[in-house]
Amino acid sequence: MSSALVTRLRVSYQELFEALQRALLKLGFASEPAARCARLFTDTTCDGVYSHGLNRFARFVATIHNGTVDIQSTPELVTSCGAVERWDGKLGVGNLNAYQSMERAVALARQHSIGCVALANTNHWMRGGSYGWQAADAGMVGICWTNTLPNLPPWGASDARLGNNPIVIAVPRPGGHVVLDMAMSQFSYGALRAYQLSGEQLPVNGGYDLEGNLTRNPKAIEASGRPLPIGYWKGSGLALLLDLMAAMLSGGQATYQIPADPERETGLSQVFIAINLAALDQAGLAGQLADQIVGNLTSPPNSTAERVRYPGERVLQTRKENLKEGIPVAQSAWDELVAIGGS
Amino acid sequence: MSSALVTRLRVSYQELFEALQRALLKLGFASEPAARCARLFTDTTCDGVYSHGLNRFARFVATIHNGTVDIQSTPELVTSCGAVERWDGKLGVGNLNAYQSMERAVALARQHSIGCVALANTNHWMRGGSYGWQAADAGMVGICWTNTLPNLPPWGASDARLGNNPIVIAVPRPGGHVVLDMAMSQFSYGALRAYQLSGEQLPVNGGYDLEGNLTRNPKAIEASGRPLPIGYWKGSGLALLLDLMAAMLSGGQATYQIPADPERETGLSQVFIAINLAALDQAGLAGQLADQIVGNLTSPPNSTAERVRYPGERVLQTRKENLKEGIPVAQSAWDELVAIGGS
Repeated sequence: MSSALVTRLRVSYQELFEALQRALLKLGFASEPAARCARLFTDTTCDGVYSHGLNRFARFVATIHNGTVDIQSTPELVTSCGAVERWDGKLGVGNLNAYQSMERAVALARQHSIGCVALANTNHWMRGGSYGWQAADAGMVGICWTNTLPNLPPWGASDARLGNNPIVIAVPRPGGHVVLDMAMSQFSYGALRAYQLSGEQLPVNGGYDLEGNLTRNPKAIEASGRPLPIGYWKGSGLALLLDLMAAMLSGGQATYQIPADPERETGLSQVFIAINLAALDQAGLAGQLADQIVGNLTSPPNSTAERVRYPGERVLQTRKENLKEGIPVAQSAWDELVAIGGS
Repeated sequence: MSSALVTRLRVSYQELFEALQRALLKLGFASEPAARCARLFTDTTCDGVYSHGLNRFARFVATIHNGTVDIQSTPELVTSCGAVERWDGKLGVGNLNAYQSMERAVALARQHSIGCVALANTNHWMRGGSYGWQAADAGMVGICWTNTLPNLPPWGASDARLGNNPIVIAVPRPGGHVVLDMAMSQFSYGALRAYQLSGEQLPVNGGYDLEGNLTRNPKAIEASGRPLPIGYWKGSGLALLLDLMAAMLSGGQATYQIPADPERETGLSQVFIAINLAALDQAGLAGQLADQIVGNLTSPPNSTAERVRYPGERVLQTRKENLKEGIPVAQSAWDELVAIGGS
């Protein structure tokens, strides 16, 4: 779905990381946060989630300049009770806040076998899947979700009263972690835009047109502002529950309290849960079982059947390819990044 | 969607409870499990989830007679590590095992602020929502899910390699708990059958016909065995992750290991998580916030807009009505129940 008009080049992982790091330092980040934030943006791009990697960086920088993101603040512990903690994100950098929250959930899980961090007053976490890979890399089952600005009409209404509230679920596996990263809308606005640019129709109905008819036309859905929740009433219900839990557990804002302007979306609420599989699985059988489950899903029962992919599979393939061949970046985004960092 | 040919009567909550209790005692249940199991079936029926209440009882009894459910066994603690426990359900009564597991998760959450019980070797939990209401009644956020026999083709395949793996999420709320109870298929086989009996088409595409075309015809989907996952690839991914987590955390069976015959479905894996909201929400603000979030969802922004329902709303309305007017039961199911219990 990429436009052929965009000039692309491939840069190495290290080149991209260092360019991002330089830019962040120039923007005023301290040394350690700059490295962590650059790492998260680089990994996201290398993993092929281009919409939330380098291509998202300019918009991220804009939210620093417009005061939405405070690069000086760090999260503050508000309440600690056993295996659960409530943190205040102090409107700091979204991906750094999220990374630290999952790190803390993992630490709590090492102590209590399960850990939960509820984070209020944070900013967009960029690629949610990052924190799933993070938990799985630590050998943990990871579950996290965020609320968002109102961008999804609930089932039965035409105005956006829900967020698309992405949820991430990750399971560690010897043959490659299984990491699901999905929003509650069938297609994100980013995906709708990508289909529109490529001139393609959506593969399935993605929302309503201005006349209230279901449509596969991405432009018509952008115009109506009525994307479909996954599973109609089911995704609508799930989005509500994710918002309720995030706001109630963190003591932060719910979707209806979040500014509806994407450039000013801030004060989000998030939840991070880690479960220490190794504590339960003392015989060490879970990894083998996971490989069998995924093997059963992806191996067709006969030679004429379809090959099914599992969540996270394409990320691993793309990561491997990009580490070898270099990470594809748009010339314009690369030039912009280099200009911020100076050279 | 109820057939007009079925003769119905209304019985009081107490009448239904006592008839179920008598039947369970006759079937050999001990006194306390009989009361708890009767309570769960009565609540389910009273709450209007008729498919999993009295109407399910005959099939439940059949699984006792065919040896799938062992009414004498009680769950056994396998591993205890901090806030997480692994239990063996010993192929006992599914709803009793589930109830005890959520009770245990709630007790762990009182101690550690979050509790998690992973349960292996259990049987069908009947209405999953029961354990959500149970957690919310205890003031907890409750999350639980189960795997099932293979009954759902993953996105991209035509044979059932996934379960429809229902998940339940519950949040306590002064104005009425919010309880989501949903399977990963857009329509359960029970729902397909109900639409078919009523002669109605599904409101949205629910699966494929034998020719591989998406259809709203419930009979065609039953014939193909190809219901749709919610959100296509998204529900397919979520079903996989729920199965992975349930089997890996409990050390029990995954969907691919569970007998595909509904009459012999057994050895299920389930997870129960409770989070002690009160420990975090020391200022007691969460309830008010929950009421505001739900109020914002359900109150239309203007007089011409639609009234949206929240998950759990209809249950509360039906419960109230059935407690006042009596619970509607089919004459045949009632006669059968009374015959088991003797009178």
